[in-house]
Order: sequence, then C-alpha cells, then structure tokens
Amino acid sequence: MKIGIIGFGYWGPNLLRNFSGLDNCKVEIVSDYRMERLDIVKKNYPSVKTSLTADDIFNDLSIDAVVIATPVFSHFELAEKALVSNKHVLLEKPMTASSADAQKLIDLSLQKNKVLMVDHTFLYTGAVQKMKHLVDSGDLGKVNYFDSTRINLGLFQQDVNVLWDLAPHDISILTHLIAEKPYSVNATGISHTNNEIENIAYMTVNFQSGFIAHFNCSWSSPVKIRMTLVGGDKKMIVFNDMEPTEKIKMYDTGYSFKTDEEKQRILVDYRAGDIFIPKVQTNEALTLMAKDFVNAVSNGGSPISDCYLGLEVVKILEAAQKSIKQKGKEILL
Amino acid sequence: MKIGIIGFGYWGPNLLRNFSGLDNCKVEIVSDYRMERLDIVKKNYPSVKTSLTADDIFNDLSIDAVVIATPVFSHFELAEKALVSNKHVLLEKPMTASSADAQKLIDLSLQKNKVLMVDHTFLYTGAVQKMKHLVDSGDLGKVNYFDSTRINLGLFQQDVNVLWDLAPHDISILTHLIAEKPYSVNATGISHTNNEIENIAYMTVNFQSGFIAHFNCSWSSPVKIRMTLVGGDKKMIVFNDMEPTEKIKMYDTGYSFKTDEEKQRILVDYRAGDIFIPKVQTNEALTLMAKDFVNAVSNGGSPISDCYLGLEVVKILEAAQKSIKQKGKEILL
Amino acid sequence: MKIGIIGFGYWGPNLLRNFSGLDNCKVEIVSDYRMERLDIVKKNYPSVKTSLTADDIFNDLSIDAVVIATPVFSHFELAEKALVSNKHVLLEKPMTASSADAQKLIDLSLQKNKVLMVDHTFLYTGAVQKMKHLVDSGDLGKVNYFDSTRINLGLFQQDVNVLWDLAPHDISILTHLIAEKPYSVNATGISHTNNEIENIAYMTVNFQSGFIAHFNCSWSSPVKIRMTLVGGDKKMIVFNDMEPTEKIKMYDTGYSFKTDEEKQRILVDYRAGDIFIPKVQTNEALTLMAKDFVNAVSNGGSPISDCYLGLEVVKILEAAQKSIKQKGKEILL
Amino acid sequence: MKIGIIGFGYWGPNLLRNFSGLDNCKVEIVSDYRMERLDIVKKNYPSVKTSLTADDIFNDLSIDAVVIATPVFSHFELAEKALVSNKHVLLEKPMTASSADAQKLIDLSLQKNKVLMVDHTFLYTGAVQKMKHLVDSGDLGKVNYFDSTRINLGLFQQDVNVLWDLAPHDISILTHLIAEKPYSVNATGISHTNNEIENIAYMTVNFQSGFIAHFNCSWSSPVKIRMTLVGGDKKMIVFNDMEPTEKIKMYDTGYSFKTDEEKQRILVDYRAGDIFIPKVQTNEALTLMAKDFVNAVSNGGSPISDCYLGLEVVKILEAAQKSIKQKGKEILL
Repeated sequence: MKIGIIGFGYWGPNLLRNFSGLDNCKVEIVSDYRMERLDIVKKNYPSVKTSLTADDIFNDLSIDAVVIATPVFSHFELAEKALVSNKHVLLEKPMTASSADAQKLIDLSLQKNKVLMVDHTFLYTGAVQKMKHLVDSGDLGKVNYFDSTRINLGLFQQDVNVLWDLAPHDISILTHLIAEKPYSVNATGISHTNNEIENIAYMTVNFQSGFIAHFNCSWSSPVKIRMTLVGGDKKMIVFNDMEPTEKIKMYDTGYSFKTDEEKQRILVDYRAGDIFIPKVQTNEALTLMAKDFVNAVSNGGSPISDCYLGLEVVKILEAAQKSIKQKGKEILL
Repeated sequence: MKIGIIGFGYWGPNLLRNFSGLDNCKVEIVSDYRMERLDIVKKNYPSVKTSLTADDIFNDLSIDAVVIATPVFSHFELAEKALVSNKHVLLEKPMTASSADAQKLIDLSLQKNKVLMVDHTFLYTGAVQKMKHLVDSGDLGKVNYFDSTRINLGLFQQDVNVLWDLAPHDISILTHLIAEKPYSVNATGISHTNNEIENIAYMTVNFQSGFIAHFNCSWSSPVKIRMTLVGGDKKMIVFNDMEPTEKIKMYDTGYSFKTDEEKQRILVDYRAGDIFIPKVQTNEALTLMAKDFVNAVSNGGSPISDCYLGLEVVKILEAAQKSIKQKGKEILL
Repeated sequence: MKIGIIGFGYWGPNLLRNFSGLDNCKVEIVSDYRMERLDIVKKNYPSVKTSLTADDIFNDLSIDAVVIATPVFSHFELAEKALVSNKHVLLEKPMTASSADAQKLIDLSLQKNKVLMVDHTFLYTGAVQKMKHLVDSGDLGKVNYFDSTRINLGLFQQDVNVLWDLAPHDISILTHLIAEKPYSVNATGISHTNNEIENIAYMTVNFQSGFIAHFNCSWSSPVKIRMTLVGGDKKMIVFNDMEPTEKIKMYDTGYSFKTDEEKQRILVDYRAGDIFIPKVQTNEALTLMAKDFVNAVSNGGSPISDCYLGLEVVKILEAAQKSIKQKGKEILL
Repeated sequence: MKIGIIGFGYWGPNLLRNFSGLDNCKVEIVSDYRMERLDIVKKNYPSVKTSLTADDIFNDLSIDAVVIATPVFSHFELAEKALVSNKHVLLEKPMTASSADAQKLIDLSLQKNKVLMVDHTFLYTGAVQKMKHLVDSGDLGKVNYFDSTRINLGLFQQDVNVLWDLAPHDISILTHLIAEKPYSVNATGISHTNNEIENIAYMTVNFQSGFIAHFNCSWSSPVKIRMTLVGGDKKMIVFNDMEPTEKIKMYDTGYSFKTDEEKQRILVDYRAGDIFIPKVQTNEALTLMAKDFVNAVSNGGSPISDCYLGLEVVKILEAAQKSIKQKGKEILL
C-alpha cells in the first residue's frame, strides 16, 4: 500500500514518521507548496519523493491513499480530488469547514467505495480508550454530563476561532463516548483582537435525555488546563491530561434521592467513596490511528475515527459558530 | 449598638460568634422558629435573649440593627419589616429572590436613612482584597475576562438552583473587581432531578467593551474546584481557593500583535514570564464584614458589600434563570 | 469516672473539649500554674474546677484518672505522683524525657494495676487506621521500608530538638504498623541557633530483617510536607497528610527478579499498575483516643496507643539524640 | 575540531545528536563493542565512522577530543588512554569509580595540558543556573542547608548502588552552588536484593560552618519525586523538577531571633511572605554542556562542570559508600 501526504506543516513530520514505521505501507511522496518544508523531507527520508503540487499525488496511479494535513479551508477540495482520483483519504481534524462539505465527501466516498477517515488522534490515546471502556461497562450508571476545559496561552489562529482549533479534540471524545445524538448547541465567545475571531469561547451541547455537555476553550489562559469530567449517577471520571501518569481517576460518588413527606423536599444523599486510578496504556496514539487507517484500507471494516464521527464534530462546531454570532441563541442540529 | 439576629441555621452560629466578638456592639436577641436551634444559643451564650418570632426583634425599640440569615425567599418581607421598624439591615446573600424586591428595599432604606448591606463575605477575604489591589493597580493592563469554576459534590438545594446557591460568591467578586456594568446574560443548565431545579449551570455575562465573564457551577462534580481566572493583556491572575497558602498567583503573560505584510495576518506573540505569589492576609473574612457593617451603622459611609452590589448580583442571577428557561437566549440587564 | 487535666497549654483545650463530650466521664478539675490559662477554663466550662497546683488533683480521692499535658521534662514526676496517688494516667507524647523514666512508670503502673497510656493521636486517624488495615492484610507483600518527611516553617522549641518535637508522630505510626523491633539508630542533624538544639535532623532506624525506616524532620522548610511512604514488594502506600481528601494512595508496583545466565546479573522488572485511593474515615482522632483511654480504664483491655508503644518511641528518640551527638554513630537499642 | 565518542548506550544518541549539531565541531567516529548499537549510528548518521574498538579512536591522530559514555568502571582506563594519546576528554558522570583514579586523571590532564571535563548535565539546566544566580546574589542570606530527594520506581543497577546512580546529579548541584568544602559524610542504606547493592540510601554531608546537606535516593518509591530545598536565613528555594514550568520557587521566609530575659529562651520568629517563581530558560542543557566543552578545548578557560567538581562528587560518593558499609560511621573527606 502506497501513501501520499499532502501538507507538511506542524503535524506532517509526525504523520510521515508514523506511516513510515508501519510494516505494510510505504510513504511514496509528500507534497507541500513550500520548498523549505520539502527539504526537511529530503534530508530525513531520502527515499521519499517530494512535490510542490498535490496534483502529482492525485495523478500517480500507484498511490492507494492520501493523507491530507493542510489548513481546514482546503480540506474539501483536496479530499474531493483524491476520492475522484480513486484514492482512500485520511483527513486531519476538523474534517471540513462546513457540514455540507463533509456530507458531500461522505457521499462521494460511498459512491467510490473508498475509505474516508478523520484523524481524531485523541480517540486512540490510552486515556480515552480507558474512559470508553469504563463508560461502556455501565459502572458509571446513567451518564449525566460531560464537562471539558481546554485552555492555555496559545497561538491566536488567523483563520479559525478557538473552538475550531481546540474543541475538536473534546467533541470527538464526547461523540466517541456517548451514543445519544445531541439536538442543539448554545455558544458564547469573544474576540480580543480586531479580526472577529474568538480567542475565548464557551459551548453547551444539549441532548433530549437530559445529558449535557459543556466546553470551555481559551487561547488566553495563563495556566494550561486539560480536564474533562464525565459524570454518572453512580460513578464519575476525571480525565486530567496534564497529569503525567494519573490521567484517569474514577470516583465512587453515587447519590440517591430520598422523598421526604414534608414539603415535597427532594433530598439528595451523596456517597463519596473510593477512588480508582487505572493504569493507562502509553503507546503513541498516532501510531494506532495510522494502523487503524491502513487496516480499514487493507481489510475493510470501520475505523474508530470514521467519517461519520468527523461529520458530527463539524456539525457541532458549525452550530456553535452560528450561536456565537447570534448572541448565544440555541441552534438546532 | 444592639443587634438582633433572625434565623439561626448553618451560618447563624458564625454570625453570632463574630458580632459577639466586636467591641462596640452587642447581640441582644436571636430568633428562629425552631426551638432546638435557640437551645444552642442559650447553651453557649446565656446572656443572649431568644425568641421564636422575629416580631420580638422588630418590636424592640432598643435594637439598632438586624442581621437576616434566613432562606432567600423570606429576605424581602423580613428586611422590609426591619426597615419599617427603623432598623439597619444586614442581609445574607443573595439579597432577595428578585431584583424588584431588592430595588424596593433600597428605596425604603434611603427613605428611612438606614444602612442596607448584603453579606458577600468573600469580598472581605485576603485573597479577594489582594486581587482588587492588583486589578486597581493597573498591572494587569486592559482586563479582558473573568472565568470562574465553582464545582463540587454538593447538597442539592430544593428552593434555588445551583447558580443561586454558588454563583453569588463569584458574581460579587466580579462586580467588586470590575467597574463596567454588564449589559446581558446567557445561561444554560440542566436538572438531573424531577424538580426542574438545575444542579449544573453555565453562565456568560457580556459587557459592551468586549470584557466577558463566565461561570461554571455544579453540585455534581466528583472533585472540588474553586478557581477564578482574571486576564489582562499584560498580566493575569489565577485565584485557586483550594490552595491552603498560595491562593493568588499573578502571571506575567502579556502578548503583543505584530502586523505582517502578507495577508493582513495578525500574529500574536505571548511572553510567559515570571510568576508572583503575594502573601495574602488570613484574617477571618466574616469578622471584617461584621466590622464593616457596624462601622457603616455607627459612622455612616458605604460598606464594601453594599446594597447596590447586592442588587447587581440578584439582577444577574435573575437574568441567568430567565435565559436557562428560554434555552440560552440572551437576556438584557 | 472523674478526670483531672494537668497542664492547659496549646493542646489542653482540645483534651478538655473531647473528654467533656464523652458520655461516661466528667472532667472534674483542670490545673495549670498560669492563672490566665485557668480563666479560659472558667469562662467556657463554668462547672469545671480549676487549681494552680496539680497536688489538688493528686489529693482528690474522687479523681479516677489524670491527663498530663505539660512539657515533656515534667512528665515523669507528675505521672509518678499520679500513679502513687492511685490514678490512671494518660500522658501526652512523647511519654518521658528518657527511656529509663518510661520504664519506671510502666513498672509502677503494673504494680499499682493502673492504666498508663500515651496520647499518640495519629494512631487514631482514619488514614493511619487504613494503612494499618492495608499492611495487615498482606496486600503489600513483604514490607521493605518506611520513609517519612515532616518538615515546615516551625516554631523553634527551646527544650527539645526537632526530632523530639515532630518525629513522635511518625515513630508511633512506624511502631504501630510494623511488628518487628528495630535494633539500632543512626541520626544526623544541625542547630542553626546557638543553643545546640537541632532544628533539622535525619534519622535511620535499622531492623535485622533488612527493613529500614528513615525520618526527615525540619523546622526550617519553606514548604509544609507531611508524607510517608510504606513500600512492600507487591504494593506501596503513599500517605500524604496535606491532601484534604486523598490522603492514602496504594500503588500496584510489584517487582520481580529474573536471573540471567550471563554475569549473575540481577534484573529487576517493575510493574507499575493501578492505583487505589480508599475512602478514609474523617472522625476526629482525638475523640477516638479519649474513648480508648476511658474504655481501658473502665473495662480493662489494652489501648491502641499503650505505654509499651510510648516507651518504644522514647527509646528511638533517645538513641537518635545520642547518635547525633556522636556524629552519626550507630546506637544499638 | 574532531570528536570521537566511546560508548553508544542509553546516553550516546543524545551526545551524538548534540555534538553533531554544533557549528565548530564534527563527530568523526563512534565506537561501541556492540555491533547493533553501531548500526543505529550508521543508519541515522551515514557520514560518521564506527568501530568496535576504542583503540581506533585513540590511534587516530586527527581526533582532537573524545567523549566517554561507558559504564563507570571503565572510565579511568579509557580516559587515561585518551589523555596519553593527547586528546581532550569529556567523561560521563560519575567521573571515575574512585577518587584516586579521578586525581590521577587530573594530574595527567595537567601534565598533558588537555581539557578534562565531566558531563554533569544538570549544571547547565535553566533551573540550576537560576538557583546559582539566586544564591550568588545574596538574597537568601546565610545559606544553611541543602535537602534533596530523588526517588522513583527505577531500574536496579547491577554494578553501582542507588547513590552512585542518582546522587551525582544532586551532589554536583550542591558543589556548584556552595563554595564551602564539606569535611565529612554519614550514610545509611539497604539492599533488598541479594547482591549487597543498596537500592535505598540516605546521605548527610557535613560542613564546618554548620551548613548541612542531605540526600534521599531510592529506586523503590512508587512516586517520582525530584525536589531540592536550599534554605537561607532570609529566603529559601524549592526546586521541583517534576513541575513542567514552575520549577523554581523562592520563598520570603526569613526568621529572626529575639532574646528574652527569662530563662535564656531563644524565640524564633518566622515571616512567611511572598513567593516568586522566576521564568527559567528552557534550552536543552546537553547542548550547553557540549558547547562548554568545545569552548574549553578551543579557547581554553575552565568549563562549569570541570574535573575538580567531578572529583568532589566522586569523593563524596566514595565516602558515602564507606559509611554505609561501616554502619553509618562518619567518614572524613
């Protein structure tokens, strides 16, 4: 299986290193419009071809699959060309700049019978896999909420706001963990530059069952926080990604209602009990993601981070952006 | 100066102890409708009178001031009676169950020329006083945002939601620190009981200048977090109230814009620099609050936690509740 | 059962409050040589008698037991008088200023058939009880070491060094957890004042089996650390007393030896696995200690913190002091 | 300037990468007795020669300097040959297995007029450089103690004990920070394997002035701790190397003595004040060390981590080992 990589920016070297390390595939060519980026490829991987144009990849009939790691605004056009050229496609997250584009790519991939996958790397981390296992085991009881904080002193992006930059990680985790589909989104945010691109934003995702998800994203925090709470009525999980080894903690914190005759009071009794910190696998997530893509191409079957999950993420981001621009109004999905 | 205390629940013993400890005032009487609560007063403070009815306080002409520490729904009626009885009034937070009631009390206090104050104790902590000092000093530069998280495994209240229970602390701090008045509120939340009282809620408070404030409140978190960020364009403050001694950290994290010819890009450069942890006074905040009330009564002058700040807090809570019930719609203040 | 308390300094009010709160005993009298300390008793406990001399307690035939909370140098004389006066005795820690004195008191208590107990309060904390349970369960495997750090910016004592001040807590925990008796002690330390009383000291306690215990004590640390490690060859415990709720963590960190033909190498494989944080009881330890004393007096039976444990602690402190003064030389116990 | 590297184990790739990256030097050849290690060199650095014997380096007249990164027992022989072959030498830490060997190498280097340096990388970290700056500035006042804890679940070494493995880092920092020479060492420790090599050890280093240094080293701790305290009578430093960004904290914790007439009491008053967390440079320490070596060779002048410091470290380790084997006895340096 031969692979072409389009775009060799920040993430490109990691993709090249991981796909090069897999047994059953070979990175044939890397394209980027910047010669100085291609020079890095040449120096470190002399056997990999390079090109200043992605067309050399689309036109190469020997290439089975392409990995697209360019800015999001170019994802749709490049992925469409790749599929039309009968190639399997792995897109960096977020999948596309609009849900309509994402849907068109899905339709085209079905028509062409090609794999279309999105690199939501976080789903392949030991921590998220452990959370998935704990949620699916039913130990948490009825799962009631998801609360994520991803803030730090970050580079202000010029093309997308802080939600499009940071929230895809957390939305993909939410979508992976929770089977129920959300029905609406509220979001607020603010831009402290004069380009109207929010550097701080807050989003609530609403579900019919009463489940609720909230996201706090900022490029303007003096401290780096990466924390997600997943609360059930029996147990709750804290995922603190800043912890080097104790990333996942499960708290035995069930509560129970006691009806009291007097005054229709609802008394809630909490039982704060033991805490369990499971050992989490420390394999590199990107390696597992790359394997999942190669496996989907080679053997069929659906990857964990498939195109439907990618579409869900874009739908929520899109609705959030609408909500921010409409002053927090609820946007139906 | 003689004081009567109405309501001897959770907070009552702290109020009694603090007001009893002041030089220039005497707690004359405590009322509560529960005899077993009054027994506690009798046992520990044999010289303090007790009564099952607040009317004994209103009718006692020797009483100069009353402290009202009852559930919020009763605040208006009791405070009104107290003012009509020509007594100065200290109300527990939140001030009233509606901003209309709060305004009526303010008007009445002006008419009666009596002190009307709200016990937002947090404003008297060493940590908040230090934050106020740092913000006022201008060291932070232009102050851009306020972000507060106050979550824990808490007792579900039956009469008010989690915002009315927990957010008054943080809203009072916001109002104390930031001179600009907010113009609108968005809020979302969910009730995981069948009484429609939210146990998780999120609130954004919007300001014309681009300043933004956000509040994350929950009774359903497995971990106790008490953290507030205040971000300026030169420095930022982290207030972590769970830290025993290092509550306030000031980060030298200014950023600057660089205009780049190509594509009107806005590049933002962060400078993450030194951190400063000032020593914070550890005097009991409630003592300082009690002194501030006694001083306002004795000498005139405005207390830090005055009725206008109390009204602001209620206005924001009221708007947040409306917004939650209208699916996150922006509510103008 | 009637109790007299001798010495009403820092710890006295806690003892008075706890013994007063027990059902089956009454604090009859408190003595202290300082009238201003007795005034505090009179104000808060009008029904308790006071005296400027402990003799009034020894001479009162109605007193069943005395609690001695004076500086350590006076423990022996007071406890001896109390036993001679046919009273049960609870001594604050450390038991006495020398092991010879401690042994004499034990002999006297046996002769008089009276309870002689030492208040090592820490043994009654939920955290230490949980540790005891975990060690006794055998889950840790062979227990190999105990390592304690108890440092902070503390008041320099004038009569005893930092080991006598701080280490009794940790030595009592060691003695409580580990059945094997130590055979020798090494210690080093330094005095940064001109009174030869060490403000920083380090102690190693040696055991025949290869078990080792180490103690790091300081009044001169800028940070407050209260941490004890107990390591077995299967699991290890970290007791961090500065953690508000997660004081005890048990790590699944067994290791195994693999003999390798070449070069008689010993390879050790560590398995760092799950972590378990058990819920720990939060009852006040001093209440449980007081009950244990009253129960030992009333019903016979041996208290947890008995005089033999108290003697062990003094023996180790005494040996440590000798070792420090002899430049770290091993002192046999 | 041409360099040969002898030994390509765990640390070798880092040395090769760093020396290769310097402008004014070239890594000419790497030797190791294991072909599989040399294959790694060939694959990643095709232009670097390899050899199974160090003699090819000693015999190559074009080589100016050698870097020796082999197990400690071979350091002396290899370094002696290198110096005899008229090459400058950089030795990995610890310098040699005995202080006599270290002294011989120093004498030989002086005779041959060649640079002899030891790679105590830690001295080149931003954190240690900041500590050095703070200590030298006099801000700490009289510096009273150094207390280091370096414990984790580590690989049991077969040739050296835990002190020789872990303490060189901390002893080199101590020697770098404190000008006064120590006069004696006490140490205790235990081996939990049957090879008599201690996996837990404690060391006190004594100074005539009353300054004291203590080291706690363990391969058997469930938690990884890397913490050093440096205490002065005005300010104190905490160096927590596990902190990603806040490694150095300086505490304003001066204390003062008050002479009290009664009883020659010494009362010590502590002032716990502000805390300052300076920004620390994050350049790779190994790069700075490599530059320091190249600079010393090219331009003369003494490197920070010179052979005299290396000798000091070995002297203390040697004394500690003697002390452990003599049951903690004080060993003069």
